[in-house]
Amino acid sequence: MNLVLLLPEDLVAPDRAHLTGRRLEHVREVHRAQVGDDLAVGLLGGAMGRGRVLRLEEGVLDLALTLDLTPPPKLPLTLVLAVPRPKVLNRVVAAAASLGVARMVLLNAWKVEKAYWTSPKMRPENLRDQLLLGLEQAKDTVLPELRLARLFRPFVEDELPALLAGGTGLLAHPGTGGTAPKALAAPITLAIGPEGGWIDAEVQSLLDAGLQPLDLGPRILRTETALATLVGRLF
Amino acid sequence: MNLVLLLPEDLVAPDRAHLTGRRLEHVREVHRAQVGDDLAVGLLGGAMGRGRVLRLEEGVLDLALTLDLTPPPKLPLTLVLAVPRPKVLNRVVAAAASLGVARMVLLNAWKVEKAYWTSPKMRPENLRDQLLLGLEQAKDTVLPELRLARLFRPFVEDELPALLAGGTGLLAHPGTGGTAPKALAAPITLAIGPEGGWIDAEVQSLLDAGLQPLDLGPRILRTETALATLVGRLF
Repeated sequence: MNLVLLLPEDLVAPDRAHLTGRRLEHVREVHRAQVGDDLAVGLLGGAMGRGRVLRLEEGVLDLALTLDLTPPPKLPLTLVLAVPRPKVLNRVVAAAASLGVARMVLLNAWKVEKAYWTSPKMRPENLRDQLLLGLEQAKDTVLPELRLARLFRPFVEDELPALLAGGTGLLAHPGTGGTAPKALAAPITLAIGPEGGWIDAEVQSLLDAGLQPLDLGPRILRTETALATLVGRLF
Repeated sequence: MNLVLLLPEDLVAPDRAHLTGRRLEHVREVHRAQVGDDLAVGLLGGAMGRGRVLRLEEGVLDLALTLDLTPPPKLPLTLVLAVPRPKVLNRVVAAAASLGVARMVLLNAWKVEKAYWTSPKMRPENLRDQLLLGLEQAKDTVLPELRLARLFRPFVEDELPALLAGGTGLLAHPGTGGTAPKALAAPITLAIGPEGGWIDAEVQSLLDAGLQPLDLGPRILRTETALATLVGRLF
C-alpha cells in the first residue's frame, strides 16, 4: 500500500480522515507510522497528497489532509480480457489497475470455464477490492471502468467496433506473425485471450470487428506478465 | 505447463521418456491427454519437440520423443534484483525465467530484511523449481544462470562493472527523471530495487558502477509487473 486510499465515508471534515480496519492495520504494522508522520494519501476519484498522523491507537487513525496533487494520467487503453481462472483473476485485475488501464472488459470465450463466472472472485465487491489494491499499489485514485460481458458475440459484434472508433485495436495471439503497428493511434484496445487461447472462430470475429493481430513471439506468458509486457511495448 | 520439461533422468532411451509425479498428474488432469496424443516437450538444456503418449496410466506416462526444435533465444538481459519478500519471490523468479532473462542475480539491499535470506523459498531447490515452472510456462528449456549475492558492496564494486562491459546498465528507480537511452547496446543489465526502494547510498554505488538511472514514471509497480513492463519497453 503505497497510497492510503480514502473513501468518501472516511472524511469527517474536508481535511480530516478517520480510518479503521485494513488500512489502519497496514499503517500500524507495515508502515509503522507514528504521530506526526506524513503518509501518502489520496481520495478515491479525487486528489492526492499527504495525511499527517494526528492520532494512532488501537482501532483509531486520524489524519490531517493536504490534497494538492493530481493522480497520474491513465493509459488510453481498453483491455478486453477473457475471464482468467479465479486463482489468477485477482492478480490480473489488480495489475491492470496498477498499470493505469482506463477501462477493462472481462469477456467470455470458448475456453473460459462456466464455473469462472460463478466464482466468488467475480463478484463486483471482490473485483472492486482488487482494483482498489492496484490503485493503492500504483499511487492512483481513479478506478478504471470495469464491465462484464458474458456473451462473446453480442459484445464483439455490436459493441467492440464502436470502442475501436478512431483508435487502434490489437489482438494478442500467439502464432499470428502480426507485429505492432509503428504508429499507434490512441485510444488502444487490446484483447488478451484465455489460458488455452482464443479458438479460430473467436479470432475471426475479433479480426472482423477491426482488431489487428499482434504476435507475442514464441514465449507463452502468463496473462499478467503478457499484459505488463504489452503495456511496456505500446506506451 | 505449456511444455513438458524432461530431465535427463526421465529418458529411458534417446527417444523415450518415462514420467512420474507432478508432470504426470498435470498431463492427466489438466491436459487430459490420451494415448496417441502429442504433447509439447523439451529436454532441459536441450531441444524441444513432440512427445507422443504411448502409455498413460495411474503412475506411468511413457512418451515417444521427436526433438527437432531449438528453444527460443534468451534476452540479452542480466537482471540484478534486490531479494523480494518470500511471498512474492516465487512469482518473480518464475516470471523472469518465462520472459527469457539470461542471468539473474539476487542481491542484498538495505531494505531487504535479513529473514528473507533464510526463508525456505531462497533454498536452491526451490529457486530452481520456480525457474523450471517459468520455462514450462514459456516453452523454453534453458535455465537462466542464477546467482545469490549476499553482500551488496563487493558485488556492486567488484563484479558489476565487469558485467556491464560493452553493454548498457540501467537502474530502475522512481523519481530519477532518467529516460531509457534510445539505442541500447546489448547486453543489458537491469537493476530493480526492493519494495521500499534503494537507499541513497545504494543508488550512488550503482551509478558509480556504471548504471544509468531509468525513471519508471509516477506509478509504483509490483516487482514482477515492473520487470515485465521494462522487458516490453527495452526489447
